[in-house]
Amino acid sequence: MFLYGESREVMMHVGGLLTFTQAPDAPADQMRGLMDEIRAGAPVYRPWNMRLRTPDLLWNPLQAWQEVDVDLEYHVRRTALPSPGDERELGIVVSRLHGHHIDFHRPPWEVHLIEGLEGQRFALYVKVHHSLVDGFSAMKILANALSTDPAERDRPLFFSIPPPARKRDESEGLHFPELMAIVREQYGASKTALRALREVLTGHHDGLVTPRQAPKCVLNARISRSRRFATQSVETARLRAVAKASGGTLNDVILAVSAASLRRYLLEQDALPDDPLVAMVPVAIRAKEDEGGGNAVGAILASLATDIEDAGERIAEIIASTREAKQQLSGMSKAAILQYSAMLLAPSLAQMIPTTAGHVKPTFNVVISNVPGPDQPLYFRGARLDAAYPMSIPVHGQALNITCNSYAGMMCFGFTGCRDTVPHLQRLAVYCGEALVELEHAFGLAIGTGF
Amino acid sequence: MFLYGESREVMMHVGGLLTFTQAPDAPADQMRGLMDEIRAGAPVYRPWNMRLRTPDLLWNPLQAWQEVDVDLEYHVRRTALPSPGDERELGIVVSRLHGHHIDFHRPPWEVHLIEGLEGQRFALYVKVHHSLVDGFSAMKILANALSTDPAERDRPLFFSIPPPARKRDESEGLHFPELMAIVREQYGASKTALRALREVLTGHHDGLVTPRQAPKCVLNARISRSRRFATQSVETARLRAVAKASGGTLNDVILAVSAASLRRYLLEQDALPDDPLVAMVPVAIRAKEDEGGGNAVGAILASLATDIEDAGERIAEIIASTREAKQQLSGMSKAAILQYSAMLLAPSLAQMIPTTAGHVKPTFNVVISNVPGPDQPLYFRGARLDAAYPMSIPVHGQALNITCNSYAGMMCFGFTGCRDTVPHLQRLAVYCGEALVELEHAFGLAIGTGF
Repeated sequence: MFLYGESREVMMHVGGLLTFTQAPDAPADQMRGLMDEIRAGAPVYRPWNMRLRTPDLLWNPLQAWQEVDVDLEYHVRRTALPSPGDERELGIVVSRLHGHHIDFHRPPWEVHLIEGLEGQRFALYVKVHHSLVDGFSAMKILANALSTDPAERDRPLFFSIPPPARKRDESEGLHFPELMAIVREQYGASKTALRALREVLTGHHDGLVTPRQAPKCVLNARISRSRRFATQSVETARLRAVAKASGGTLNDVILAVSAASLRRYLLEQDALPDDPLVAMVPVAIRAKEDEGGGNAVGAILASLATDIEDAGERIAEIIASTREAKQQLSGMSKAAILQYSAMLLAPSLAQMIPTTAGHVKPTFNVVISNVPGPDQPLYFRGARLDAAYPMSIPVHGQALNITCNSYAGMMCFGFTGCRDTVPHLQRLAVYCGEALVELEHAFGLAIGTGF
Repeated sequence: MFLYGESREVMMHVGGLLTFTQAPDAPADQMRGLMDEIRAGAPVYRPWNMRLRTPDLLWNPLQAWQEVDVDLEYHVRRTALPSPGDERELGIVVSRLHGHHIDFHRPPWEVHLIEGLEGQRFALYVKVHHSLVDGFSAMKILANALSTDPAERDRPLFFSIPPPARKRDESEGLHFPELMAIVREQYGASKTALRALREVLTGHHDGLVTPRQAPKCVLNARISRSRRFATQSVETARLRAVAKASGGTLNDVILAVSAASLRRYLLEQDALPDDPLVAMVPVAIRAKEDEGGGNAVGAILASLATDIEDAGERIAEIIASTREAKQQLSGMSKAAILQYSAMLLAPSLAQMIPTTAGHVKPTFNVVISNVPGPDQPLYFRGARLDAAYPMSIPVHGQALNITCNSYAGMMCFGFTGCRDTVPHLQRLAVYCGEALVELEHAFGLAIGTGF
């Protein structure tokens, strides 16, 4: 389904960046040894050995997956950081890797073993096309492939680990792309985005309210082929303390630090709209008539209150906005929630068509997702996982994605943007960290330290 | 014109790989310093500041170039080799870089500053789309941007050097892509390859002989998106000694070592055709009726005599074959030479259409070009240029290119191939070196040492 979106500029692959600190007794060239081991022969399990049957006809309605022999030397790649091998060089290299197309003539994934990261560290960057594994599952698979035991030294990489019995736990959060997939599925996989859009806009919708209009913003322009990626991580306890003090949820605080960062970033560019920015937030909601406690996946629109200067007043407005949106959803049936989400997303589907991007007024300005991750520290052959950052998919009209992933007491923010539409993306990451300090100050909390 | 050929698998960009040995007094992170200097601001001269006016409509018949502001941080990139930083790792990294598409929304070129090469060395990899600068000119521009003075330490990179007054010296050799460009030009830039082909095949051709048919070979299959690049360099004096002993030219010896290497490579794969392989060799020929001593550009077909086991007999057959072909051309007018070359290339244009590749019988099996380069040693900020390897364009039906570039007494062979159609490309490079030893042996010459 995600093959429809693929073009020279819009690449529907997600990524994950994992950084590790090597064990004190690890060999200096651990990555080289790992590569030699893989070259000598490693098994490849589903789905990592699947490719498209007709890669030259991406839109083939009879498109299917088939198992193939995998040339692991193609899929597993070594990369090194130029000196000094700091976070900036890591960001540059990963941005570049994330900007390359995936080859559909092979199973659509790659993993890069990145060495030369200062402080006895290394990184893994994993790229998967969304048609093979969605971003949410990808992060879960990556985490499951790691060990909770620092002494375990022979664990293979994720593709050599047999898949567990599948059970999908919908309560754990949702990425923007998955939601879009569900919406598209609803409107028929064989229809184009444009036809789906027409149906949504002209159909009846159980008397749902029309979403508030988001202001025009530079973030909702056409994108180019290049990506920029930046990261930030903070202790989750600090976010929870602000949530408690402000009467909001953890998600509200994530929205608030993102809002503060975006406000400052856009002000500097003299591009802050007068009206507050609107964020689309994928949520899991307990629907009204559902038996057995199942959850519905949906989306809410939240005001980021970027028109408000005071940090305390801003988060209060954000909390009020998400509360209202969730209340509205919770009164609906599962089908209605999905229909409502479709309506929210419809204009965004239209924006994905290059010629309309930047002309259609956006329903929302930015997507902010929060995906809970593992709580306990994880290891790969004795190396401790320091942070896990999800990388999402910028599309025409949505040039920036903010995706959070929690891990072992840390909240890891990944900012994925279009290099040209969102210049100096790194600043957004820096400002997020400073925004948290500002919020702690506003609520009289002890100031924590950045990570 | 080369925009017509661009697709997901066929990328019409050429490349050059230059390796340098650092000056003893050079700073350890010379590449980092160079990047900082470029970030601080560097001028960009034509053609490096030109991009297509309508990059989303590559085939637009009104396509034109326009000058734009250049985001140098996009075009100039730092890369590091993973340990141990040897020629193999360099080959892997450069193959990967050569396999990525160029972004037509920007001036279509990139330069990669590659550090971490063992032995106090670094490398530059330059990628240019063929529509901006042809490969022959690109190598010349690169060489001209270097210094003959090892003491000069402030020379900028090529894009910051104003272009010299243009004079094209046609006598110096020619790449396959240039020749193809001239042929296409002849048949109208707005016509498709297929229409040009029909005209060539059904038209009259001054009673020219039809070229001999090349055998079917694995080298003439459909290509994938990935590239593999391998290099070899030998002392030109050794090639000249064999040329003198065998009564052939330098080009004949280049063909002979290539032939020996291909024969061995294909034998190992149990894929050597019974009939001898045919090489297409771009040449500059003094045409019959030309006043003022101008040269015509054309192509000859040469037998590689891969059916002959004995190295001495094989080169004798190659020499006879090229002599006959050149004699045939030298009796023709400039227009006839071009027409003849077009006829040779016509089936290859048809092969470039993915669905026909592998079905049409090839006119030739491989392209082998020789481009003379600078004679004297060159330097970049005190670092001595060790070798300069051209990288060419594999197309559907022509999965392998062998291109030679002479430099300061060395002959640098660049093998550019499709990763999947020509597996273990590295072996071709190794076998070329060994083939020269075999030839020296056959002619009783003192055996030289590989470089």
